[in-house]
Amino acid sequence: MTTEQDLELVTRYQKEIFLLSQTSSLLGWDQQTYMPGKAAQTRAEQISFLSSLIHEKMISNEFFEAVNRLYENKDKLNEDNQAIIRKLYKEIAKSRKLPKEFVEELSKTTSLAHNVWKEAKQKSDFNIFKPYLKKIIDLKRKQTDYIHLSGHPYNSLIDDFEEGMTVEKLQPFFEDLKNKIIDLLEKIESTEIYKSQQKENQKKFPINLQLEFANELAKSLGLSNENFRLDLSEHPFTTSIGLNDVRITTNVNHGFLKNFSSVMHEAGHAIHSIQLPEEYHYTILWDSPSYGISESQSRFWENLIGKGRPFWHYYFPKMDEKFKLNGDFEKWYNTANFVFPGKIRIEADEIHYCMHIILRFELEKGLIEGSIKVEDLPQIWSKKMKNYFGIVPENDSEGVLQDVHWSEGYFGYFPSYAIGSVYAVQLYAQLEKEIPNIEGDIFEGNFERIRNWLNEKVHKHGAKILADDLIKQICGEGLNPNVFIEYLKEKYSKIYQF
Amino acid sequence: MTTEQDLELVTRYQKEIFLLSQTSSLLGWDQQTYMPGKAAQTRAEQISFLSSLIHEKMISNEFFEAVNRLYENKDKLNEDNQAIIRKLYKEIAKSRKLPKEFVEELSKTTSLAHNVWKEAKQKSDFNIFKPYLKKIIDLKRKQTDYIHLSGHPYNSLIDDFEEGMTVEKLQPFFEDLKNKIIDLLEKIESTEIYKSQQKENQKKFPINLQLEFANELAKSLGLSNENFRLDLSEHPFTTSIGLNDVRITTNVNHGFLKNFSSVMHEAGHAIHSIQLPEEYHYTILWDSPSYGISESQSRFWENLIGKGRPFWHYYFPKMDEKFKLNGDFEKWYNTANFVFPGKIRIEADEIHYCMHIILRFELEKGLIEGSIKVEDLPQIWSKKMKNYFGIVPENDSEGVLQDVHWSEGYFGYFPSYAIGSVYAVQLYAQLEKEIPNIEGDIFEGNFERIRNWLNEKVHKHGAKILADDLIKQICGEGLNPNVFIEYLKEKYSKIYQF
Repeated sequence: MTTEQDLELVTRYQKEIFLLSQTSSLLGWDQQTYMPGKAAQTRAEQISFLSSLIHEKMISNEFFEAVNRLYENKDKLNEDNQAIIRKLYKEIAKSRKLPKEFVEELSKTTSLAHNVWKEAKQKSDFNIFKPYLKKIIDLKRKQTDYIHLSGHPYNSLIDDFEEGMTVEKLQPFFEDLKNKIIDLLEKIESTEIYKSQQKENQKKFPINLQLEFANELAKSLGLSNENFRLDLSEHPFTTSIGLNDVRITTNVNHGFLKNFSSVMHEAGHAIHSIQLPEEYHYTILWDSPSYGISESQSRFWENLIGKGRPFWHYYFPKMDEKFKLNGDFEKWYNTANFVFPGKIRIEADEIHYCMHIILRFELEKGLIEGSIKVEDLPQIWSKKMKNYFGIVPENDSEGVLQDVHWSEGYFGYFPSYAIGSVYAVQLYAQLEKEIPNIEGDIFEGNFERIRNWLNEKVHKHGAKILADDLIKQICGEGLNPNVFIEYLKEKYSKIYQF
Repeated sequence: MTTEQDLELVTRYQKEIFLLSQTSSLLGWDQQTYMPGKAAQTRAEQISFLSSLIHEKMISNEFFEAVNRLYENKDKLNEDNQAIIRKLYKEIAKSRKLPKEFVEELSKTTSLAHNVWKEAKQKSDFNIFKPYLKKIIDLKRKQTDYIHLSGHPYNSLIDDFEEGMTVEKLQPFFEDLKNKIIDLLEKIESTEIYKSQQKENQKKFPINLQLEFANELAKSLGLSNENFRLDLSEHPFTTSIGLNDVRITTNVNHGFLKNFSSVMHEAGHAIHSIQLPEEYHYTILWDSPSYGISESQSRFWENLIGKGRPFWHYYFPKMDEKFKLNGDFEKWYNTANFVFPGKIRIEADEIHYCMHIILRFELEKGLIEGSIKVEDLPQIWSKKMKNYFGIVPENDSEGVLQDVHWSEGYFGYFPSYAIGSVYAVQLYAQLEKEIPNIEGDIFEGNFERIRNWLNEKVHKHGAKILADDLIKQICGEGLNPNVFIEYLKEKYSKIYQF
């Protein structure tokens, strides 16, 4: 086989894998949005069959051998192809480390566990889910044996989401972040404003009005009906169905602010997806370098833009008019940014959010290394919540059962949320340095220079550059909690006047 | 391989083919309903890739050989498996008659032709489409050579839609039907009522109200959110995504009556789909015996129920209240059934509809046997329209370009529409014989006995019985135009008073 033939074969395999994954994404999107209730069983079989086809292709000998040959002669390839082959080589090698029986067992177990988790959460009874979680953790521990990256066993799982990230790097980062957040929270909690703050009772608005608002908001950020759509689902998410087809969802049943945050967050993902370079489509580079970078894009719009004063200066009058709030801007801005220790990760404010992640990181690390037993989880969860948040969940459903991730076999995913939140702040700080008066743009609702800057710095590279290298290239340094903490201090010292 | 092993393999193949087809149906549904505009190119690649996977499975040697072994020993199988193997044997043998290169060429040609047809229709210029249609007809003629069923070459195409149906049977049937319809139309056209009738200008209603109405209508027939949904699309259609997941669409931009007819029609398909026996799911029996039977189910609800007096007695007051029509029942019923010669098939009344089909049957037969040339089509179309309808299309877009079928390579499909319309009347006549006072049920909006009867007679057999045998089993005779004509006479002699 010539290099050209090998490249052709590798191109074809990637394209076929992509076509199947995109199709599977549509099955998933439909499942969460429009699928009739009783269709769940057949849908699970459709998705699972496509997964098996994708896995088959991924580990096929023909594909593997072509990638290997190209990998050995990668110096002869152009830059893009080098990146493609490097990534494929690593990913296929990893996939092939897992025996077929193991993959099937994991898939079957998580498929069952997901429904059991739902029931357990609904009944708020960890005992229902416990045996399944035990099984999953046994399997994930087995997986770390198969994959066997160097260092801590948990590294073999984190790497799926954050290529190259390790416990050895994360542990000190999270330790530092935790201490600094606790310091900051102490400052906030000692203020008069904090002590007298009250959660605003949110007004209810009709679904149609909220949906209209959500669409207008997404479009005001630069999204268009030509390549994007917005629908309703229980949990907001973003999914890409292919070139020029990205879909986000929101939930309008939990008040105006939740809807607003979800749209800002998911729109950030959508802008990322839409700006991925067309020439990378159907290749492994048509992606984000890591889940952390991906999350940095959603957090950027949700937090740095959407929770900032300039944005609300622009948006508050529009909203006020649409929803007839008759509100006071200063009160609105402060209320929208009030800091509360809460039990639920996805409802957390900017400051508490990372604490939720750190708690989960510590638990996952313990579960995988074997220092924490599944049966002790609820108790350890409560203890850590007490230590970090000063509150404890009243039941399993707002504690250890709140997140879907474990039931789906995702261990090593949570850290990316915190990494992304920190990256987002670093990116925004860099943007402010590079483009003068960017707040003026936001103030006027003009997001073009911001989208272009993100494209130039992040999106147009697809998955070509490792996350850590990309951030260094953009910001001159890697993951830095200090930039994050400085941003929080600066912002919240004004809100809480300390 | 033991019979058991062979059956297991055949079961697995059927299931995999079904899972891929259902997934492909979802891609198609989404394309017509929610897909963003610019995603068309990628969507075409996704659908085409799934088609190639399905075709690969369908013609795989392993599958073929197992089916062959079972076919040779089919007497040992139970009744259902006999039917499965008989159908698979025939279908695979047919698929394997077509060389891979031919299938690819046809697929590529029609994929291109479809877009060209759209453009040609929009510009109303047959010349744009002509070279593509020529190519398609060349390929379809080639296909008849490959398939080579006995009798007229067109038989090899009709058989894809109406197993066992031939030109030799259809020609006299259509000839008879045509003459009888022309007679009937002459009677109608000579009445005073016909001469003074006027098309009602339809009131416009808001989209939301129409959509709400469409959903209420579908549900009043017995459909439920648990396994069904209704959305909007340019052309109304029904698609099954799997067990407990059938979807229909309607278009609310062409007035109330068009929306009403579409919902009745597609709901008929949906009831059929939902009542297919669960034990046949993922097998070739989870289907209709033919396109004609399929169409009989939609026509049954659209025409026999939805255009009848008892139904309007039940539905008119509800509708009158919802839409504030302040209408007169008799006037409404007559207007909804007025007969007009029109140029467009899908807008035709019950009587003219079959004339549109007969025209297409005659043209397709001529094109396939070579007695009609593509370049003469518009002229022959006009001539036949003049003869059968007394009107001629003013341009290609309301003439020879009006239907999508040819651009997609569907030749031999149209006859099923007429067959289905006749079957529907035969079924209704039989229903009236077997269940006394069925009009009383309709009058009260109670469709349970009707759905159960259709299930018992048609749906629960899936595709197990050949269409012709099924109709004979239910009605005591096969396709009979006289029953159809008698129904039309009886109904329209009252409306037009002759």
